[in-house]
Amino acid sequence: MLSVNQEAFKLVKRLCESPDEYSISVRKNRKGVTLIDAGIQAEGGFNAGRIVTEICMGGFGVARIFPKQYDDVELSCIFVHSDHPAIATFGSQFAGWQIKKGNFFAIGSGPARALALKPRDIYEKIKYEDKADIAIMVLETNKEPPEELTNDFALECNVSPSQLYIILTPTTSITGSTQISGRIVETGLHKLSKLGIDPLSIRYAWGYAPIAPVHPKFAEAMGETNDVILYGGVAFYALEHKNDNKLKDLLRKAPSSASNHYGRPFKDIFKEANYDFYQIDPNLFAPAMFIINNIVTGSVLQVGKVNVEVLKQSLGLVTLDNSQD
Amino acid sequence: MLSVNQEAFKLVKRLCESPDEYSISVRKNRKGVTLIDAGIQAEGGFNAGRIVTEICMGGFGVARIFPKQYDDVELSCIFVHSDHPAIATFGSQFAGWQIKKGNFFAIGSGPARALALKPRDIYEKIKYEDKADIAIMVLETNKEPPEELTNDFALECNVSPSQLYIILTPTTSITGSTQISGRIVETGLHKLSKLGIDPLSIRYAWGYAPIAPVHPKFAEAMGETNDVILYGGVAFYALEHKNDNKLKDLLRKAPSSASNHYGRPFKDIFKEANYDFYQIDPNLFAPAMFIINNIVTGSVLQVGKVNVEVLKQSLGLVTLDNSQD
Amino acid sequence: MLSVNQEAFKLVKRLCESPDEYSISVRKNRKGVTLIDAGIQAEGGFNAGRIVTEICMGGFGVARIFPKQYDDVELSCIFVHSDHPAIATFGSQFAGWQIKKGNFFAIGSGPARALALKPRDIYEKIKYEDKADIAIMVLETNKEPPEELTNDFALECNVSPSQLYIILTPTTSITGSTQISGRIVETGLHKLSKLGIDPLSIRYAWGYAPIAPVHPKFAEAMGETNDVILYGGVAFYALEHKNDNKLKDLLRKAPSSASNHYGRPFKDIFKEANYDFYQIDPNLFAPAMFIINNIVTGSVLQVGKVNVEVLKQSLGLVTLDNSQD
Repeated sequence: MLSVNQEAFKLVKRLCESPDEYSISVRKNRKGVTLIDAGIQAEGGFNAGRIVTEICMGGFGVARIFPKQYDDVELSCIFVHSDHPAIATFGSQFAGWQIKKGNFFAIGSGPARALALKPRDIYEKIKYEDKADIAIMVLETNKEPPEELTNDFALECNVSPSQLYIILTPTTSITGSTQISGRIVETGLHKLSKLGIDPLSIRYAWGYAPIAPVHPKFAEAMGETNDVILYGGVAFYALEHKNDNKLKDLLRKAPSSASNHYGRPFKDIFKEANYDFYQIDPNLFAPAMFIINNIVTGSVLQVGKVNVEVLKQSLGLVTLDNSQD
Repeated sequence: MLSVNQEAFKLVKRLCESPDEYSISVRKNRKGVTLIDAGIQAEGGFNAGRIVTEICMGGFGVARIFPKQYDDVELSCIFVHSDHPAIATFGSQFAGWQIKKGNFFAIGSGPARALALKPRDIYEKIKYEDKADIAIMVLETNKEPPEELTNDFALECNVSPSQLYIILTPTTSITGSTQISGRIVETGLHKLSKLGIDPLSIRYAWGYAPIAPVHPKFAEAMGETNDVILYGGVAFYALEHKNDNKLKDLLRKAPSSASNHYGRPFKDIFKEANYDFYQIDPNLFAPAMFIINNIVTGSVLQVGKVNVEVLKQSLGLVTLDNSQD
Repeated sequence: MLSVNQEAFKLVKRLCESPDEYSISVRKNRKGVTLIDAGIQAEGGFNAGRIVTEICMGGFGVARIFPKQYDDVELSCIFVHSDHPAIATFGSQFAGWQIKKGNFFAIGSGPARALALKPRDIYEKIKYEDKADIAIMVLETNKEPPEELTNDFALECNVSPSQLYIILTPTTSITGSTQISGRIVETGLHKLSKLGIDPLSIRYAWGYAPIAPVHPKFAEAMGETNDVILYGGVAFYALEHKNDNKLKDLLRKAPSSASNHYGRPFKDIFKEANYDFYQIDPNLFAPAMFIINNIVTGSVLQVGKVNVEVLKQSLGLVTLDNSQD
């Protein structure tokens, strides 16, 4: 049986053995919980972002950074692939642990969820839970969690505080934007699941998305890290489905372009929704493009496409003229 | 002296240490031979396909999976490079061991060939043989080989059965289609050799080809795994040649497009040949494109090109319209 | 504190443990200095080029080889990224150690520079020096250095000769051309520094450039290895800058196209300058394209572009017609 916490711990050890190389800082708080700062005070980097992505996937996904040309634009991207997509994404990477205590808010993800079963219905859906005595948690936040709270996390994971490792990555850091783009396969699988696909029917998956450049303001960073998925993300799934026609109908609704909010940078959409997430069409949250291989019939279906124009708009990309005078 | 079996064994050990991670199953049969199922009952995956590709190359090649955009199509590809192309491909990866016993048929490839010298003339050509006491064999098959036969393999390799490892990958599995596309450099080198190039004159090589999606039917899977090479494969060779003009003449005949059977999916060509391989022009079996760097003269020559249209046709790729109504 | 020599030594050990795999040869000279031939008598390869690139970056950069399509041309490229760009490039990779003794000339680079402080002003600029008791040096040369000289190197690095490792790569070898293209981030950072950017303000960087095919003649090889950067190199820097407008003005002068010598293969420019480097506009030496992310303001600026035409001209690329007659 696969243990996302045990497997991810191998990568956490690598992080902790070379904090200078990864530009992170590692310390234990007074509860004995290990806090890994990968972008609050610490600089972090592409390498930290890459390994945090693999940690988020419970060690059952591979992440690689590569450059890609989009028309006249050059961006770095992150490519992920997994042969255990349901466990790696639903069972670990999905940002499904809402954390709120006093004025501390954060979104929790990573292997620890498979111990605390956050949320429980997802783990029932994929028939998976982990029983490891070590817990690895990833928090998208720009603040350290209060010590009391980290103790609660350990309790919820049923591990001793000394066995809990929490990685902190702000949305406004390069580690943060790298690991968010690394959620491309998870984002697409979530959408497919909402459309009726059984996550366990998915055998192999890969995806890639541009890594949003760093923006120091949270609202902008949030907008850009969403847009690289919505307008730049490409995801592939090899799955088992009995009926290609039903699969086609369902797929037409899969990409972000199936939403009527599609077409402008997320920041504008959010503004128009009066900064209320619940007023945004949830169908928007999906990769720009899906490719599906139905391994029962051998068919290959693709839908949606990358939208370089909105991507450039969202990133505020300026092309300078340097023709000689 | 390089030992393809010793080098590949390092990778085989990694496979065997993490069967769950690679979604493979490992067992010893009653003769003591280790059978690694990488896609018959086991699921296999991109990771298994990647590492089996490196095993096929005797550990002297690097394989990486990456995404590539072909016009409006997105496919995953496998990139391989080797600094020992003759040994890695002719000496190991080439599917040159024909196996037939009773109703069991399979094509054998991988390092074990360098012990059993299958076929002998190839090993004479590249002046190589391995003397390892361990043998690694790869079978493209959807059935386990009979136990008696595995014993014969051990004898032919001059190793004890307990030192023989056989990896099984069906054409209809993702491991299979990945490792077949991983033969791009081998396929091109074979064609160059037939055109008169000495394999030992080739110093460095790389290549890439799309990974055919999974098709459950053998005939279709065989067609698609051929087409990704014939219409999508690109191969580079840095070689020593005395005469650029002769090299140019020879290269014009190298790509698949030099065959008059070129231009339609392999499945159609095969059908037209009444399903008789011997009626197909052998010149067809080559990458779509070659790039040659003659390191004696510094020249760089390229010929052929990727044919996205036939590729789409072969894979049966359907692009869905999801414009909003 | 990061030690470029200690970190690179891990990679040097890997090289030395598998000389056959990397097609290099390793020996100690009579002074006890270890000489690693990666392309003089030894064949070298893409793998040697890749690892030598990472060694040049003091172990604080990642290098990967990948294929890229440029219009109708296919080339292999090297992608590098670093989360410690100032130390990895200015502090290690930069070819800043001029070596001349009798009739032996070479350009020294790599971690050893951070011990010998070559040149001192660069190390003052980046406030870095290494104190390791092991020294790793890379020489772009086609001859072994005289033994006496290697002893001098050890003295200048303040290490015993037995702790000095010198890697030799000719410009005319594949290892050489790979590791030169691997200097893309360093070349761009050098140009930015000359334009007034503080190297320490740069947090993260990546870049890629085509790997020049091998040319046996030094002048041609030098031309081609320059052109892949000048006409094919793309470099990204995430940096801190107070003023986007000043940054824009400065960036317009950054790419190679800001030089009035831009537009022809380097070999022709060199010839026109009567083979006198000092007559060539130093502004020419820069990547073809820059992308800058100002992490203070969140802006993303790009300037310059890849010039496939001059690239094809420089490499002497010939596309053969193989239409059937």
